[in-house]
Amino acid sequence: MKLASYLYNNRKSYGIVTPTGVIDLGTRLGARYPDLKALLAGNALPQAEALCHLTPDVSPADVIWLPVIEHPEKILCVGMNYAEKRREFEQTDPAPTLFVRFPDSQTGHETAVIKPGPSSQFDYEGELAVIIGKGGQDIAAATALSHVAGYSCYMDGSARDWQHSWFTAGKNWQCTGAFGPYLTTTDEVPDPHALSIRTWLNGRMVQEDNTASMIHKVAELIEYISTFTCLHAGDVIITGSPGGVGKKRNPPLFMKDGDCIEVEIERIGHLRNQIVEMPLSGNRAISAIAHATAC
Amino acid sequence: MKLASYLYNNRKSYGIVTPTGVIDLGTRLGARYPDLKALLAGNALPQAEALCHLTPDVSPADVIWLPVIEHPEKILCVGMNYAEKRREFEQTDPAPTLFVRFPDSQTGHETAVIKPGPSSQFDYEGELAVIIGKGGQDIAAATALSHVAGYSCYMDGSARDWQHSWFTAGKNWQCTGAFGPYLTTTDEVPDPHALSIRTWLNGRMVQEDNTASMIHKVAELIEYISTFTCLHAGDVIITGSPGGVGKKRNPPLFMKDGDCIEVEIERIGHLRNQIVEMPLSGNRAISAIAHATAC
Repeated sequence: MKLASYLYNNRKSYGIVTPTGVIDLGTRLGARYPDLKALLAGNALPQAEALCHLTPDVSPADVIWLPVIEHPEKILCVGMNYAEKRREFEQTDPAPTLFVRFPDSQTGHETAVIKPGPSSQFDYEGELAVIIGKGGQDIAAATALSHVAGYSCYMDGSARDWQHSWFTAGKNWQCTGAFGPYLTTTDEVPDPHALSIRTWLNGRMVQEDNTASMIHKVAELIEYISTFTCLHAGDVIITGSPGGVGKKRNPPLFMKDGDCIEVEIERIGHLRNQIVEMPLSGNRAISAIAHATAC
Repeated sequence: MKLASYLYNNRKSYGIVTPTGVIDLGTRLGARYPDLKALLAGNALPQAEALCHLTPDVSPADVIWLPVIEHPEKILCVGMNYAEKRREFEQTDPAPTLFVRFPDSQTGHETAVIKPGPSSQFDYEGELAVIIGKGGQDIAAATALSHVAGYSCYMDGSARDWQHSWFTAGKNWQCTGAFGPYLTTTDEVPDPHALSIRTWLNGRMVQEDNTASMIHKVAELIEYISTFTCLHAGDVIITGSPGGVGKKRNPPLFMKDGDCIEVEIERIGHLRNQIVEMPLSGNRAISAIAHATAC
């Protein structure tokens, strides 16, 4: 089952994405579960599943996709988690590199990803996103995957010239983290570490690896993170990017206005966004262009 | 005016702290502004000010103090922001070091600060907390202080052996960030960079400096942060700790069960907490001991 969040007729909703359209769940389950995060928190995936044979009632052409989870309580991002990326950045620390994204840095599938005006090094990172279904603390790796609701694609847009030695400032510009198109539930993903992952910039493949190459695996990350902080339904763990990022190419390759960036993960989905340059004068124009046409 | 958040008769409220008691605002303004963050977002400090001459109706002895802002949307922490601390940690990066705390890592004045069981290097950091009143983006340093509602004390409890090269895991254990006792409004703080700041461990002064020693000043931090992310009413910027932390002492000095940790900032307040050891078995016992008796 594939679950997405979206705007339809200027109303926020969520639903089941099928090959022939979207089955709207907001109108059917919204009184009890106002958004996808609430559906997960209510342990109500079976109630969605029971509706998945209905005739789709919303055309994908009529929606504006939102981040799969629009307001996670916690978004934890893992840096330097693929062998090739670690070599590129000469990273040797054995502990997971963890940084945080704020929810308002996210955007949905086929919306504009905003290139920050003050950055001349806006880079792509295609990543597997893990969405927590059942929260907890001190979760053991052996049972960690039972806490996962599903997976999605993430394009962790990164202002390299603002990362400095710490990533907070480089990873939190508005509309730089594309999250979608949808959550693919775990029953469709028997092994999260046997998935090809590819990123394309303007149709040219710029990253290609397999989630088997992750240093810290999903179950291990959940164990590590839940040792020091409580995880909740709807929380998101972004598991790191393969090598091939623009910063480490010769010559470097950064994203610019009008570019098309895509992340595809086997079984999970295909995320596509257009890059829109933010005016140098600041962020104020973002809301006006955040929902520009898709590429 | 000094504004605090607290539990009173098992009900969350907030009020004005005076030398003779607390004027409860929750019962008077709570229908419109359910918590202190909402009061700030509603630009309603004048409505609180209009009530500050009432007779106090709550005894400080009868409340359990909550973090000044219990659920900030964003808590941004500045590392390595005092010259002495930078020397101790051999820090040379000129950009502000920024990391993030999640709201559930906080606790209030005179509650238990929980020493994580898996850490043997639980360290103190006394800091000035800045609470945003008027949100914004692209805020210029010249006008930044007009966006501040007030200041408070923060004890940024840090599991050094979990910081690794990245601070997220060392700074987010539950009940490790003490925030209080209250927000002191800016009219009582003519210059946030002319304040003595001191930390005591079991009555021994272990940090002593002045906020004049900050490398990146409050106005500059607000300008820098608001360049890449939007600030909202109730957001918190923790401005970094002076030198003298336990990790860099010879021999090192870490906090243990039963210790009393205090942070005092001139004009701002005096924050006091008792350290309670978390059982090694994990975090599950935290809720049971989080509101243990004060020191």
